[in-house]
Amino acid sequence: VTISYRRARKPEEKQERADRLLATARAMLTDGLALQALSLNGLAREAGMAKSNVYRYFESREAVLLALLTDEWVAWADAVTTDWPPRGSAAPSPAAVAVHLARTLATRPLLGALTAALPTVLEQNLSNETVRRFKIMALDLLHHVGQQLAVVAPGLTPAQYTQLVFELSMVITGVYPHAHPAPAASQALEAPALSLFRRDYAADLERFACALAAQLNAGP
Amino acid sequence: VTISYRRARKPEEKQERADRLLATARAMLTDGLALQALSLNGLAREAGMAKSNVYRYFESREAVLLALLTDEWVAWADAVTTDWPPRGSAAPSPAAVAVHLARTLATRPLLGALTAALPTVLEQNLSNETVRRFKIMALDLLHHVGQQLAVVAPGLTPAQYTQLVFELSMVITGVYPHAHPAPAASQALEAPALSLFRRDYAADLERFACALAAQLNAGP
Repeated sequence: VTISYRRARKPEEKQERADRLLATARAMLTDGLALQALSLNGLAREAGMAKSNVYRYFESREAVLLALLTDEWVAWADAVTTDWPPRGSAAPSPAAVAVHLARTLATRPLLGALTAALPTVLEQNLSNETVRRFKIMALDLLHHVGQQLAVVAPGLTPAQYTQLVFELSMVITGVYPHAHPAPAASQALEAPALSLFRRDYAADLERFACALAAQLNAGP
Repeated sequence: VTISYRRARKPEEKQERADRLLATARAMLTDGLALQALSLNGLAREAGMAKSNVYRYFESREAVLLALLTDEWVAWADAVTTDWPPRGSAAPSPAAVAVHLARTLATRPLLGALTAALPTVLEQNLSNETVRRFKIMALDLLHHVGQQLAVVAPGLTPAQYTQLVFELSMVITGVYPHAHPAPAASQALEAPALSLFRRDYAADLERFACALAAQLNAGP
């Protein structure tokens, strides 16, 4: 059997193909595919590429998910201080920053799902070098956001905002799966008596964010 | 092939065998076996039973892990107000309760690993009925602990302590995997510049517990 295909030889062609694969994966997940159901086979089929070709761009399905997670956090970091706080308004308090962070994070479901899966799934199946590069990117992003926030809301230091955003990422890892239970749990939780376990993702993020910001504001 | 075995027919014999399987599973995990590596096959081999026989006691490997998780939380709930606060001491503040909760939880690594896996792994692979029974048990336990704590430390209401302990279980889900990274992440995090991502499980639990208790104490 001869499979004929045209290799993407130029760097910009390779980037274009990687971007197309990511856009395809994002569309599949946004359409409701569960993270654990995304396979390189399925992605190749959906993108109209041979699986062997997909491997030229991503080492594994986890590498695809990590690239999507990176895009999500970069897009969030770009958005979080764009047009915020509104021009002419007073500097927001740390509590107001906390609410803003929680709300902008909560409206990005793919960021939530992937952040929750990062330590439990993604990092279990990636190479050291891929994880290392991701962590360096994440640290840069956290420092950048910390600095931006401290400029517009000087109630906390850049380092404190950096810590707050990182702590919120750990909160997402804990809260997202509880707020998006598996079918068996979701059905069990329909019982009125079990309402404590039915979590509102946005409300929980906001409450945790406010608690952590207040703690940072109160000092050591 | 004829497999000869003696069935456990009496209820107390069945209970004794289930307990033996749980003790075996606990020993395997305490000896360092990863949660995801525990299989009913491996458990049957270690306990000297046929796999078909193990299925008479547990519907799946996740059911074994859920039973261990239940035992861990019940043991913690029994311990948390035993000999605490020390006889004759003043009623602890909500902050002191938070520190006590965090410390008693942090010293139970199996509770941490299983609590982290509950929504992401266990509940994905259990029957509705098994999840429902677990949630009812968990709610009873949370209410019981909430009432006990409010008796010895009246700074918060039983319902507030119940909420605090449940919130801490979500914190565990978020913090435990970050504090116990996969090998690739663990190696990447040896770089001094990435120290923000190297988490101390006990310290993080305590900081989150204090932040959440202070928020409850401050009121709505």
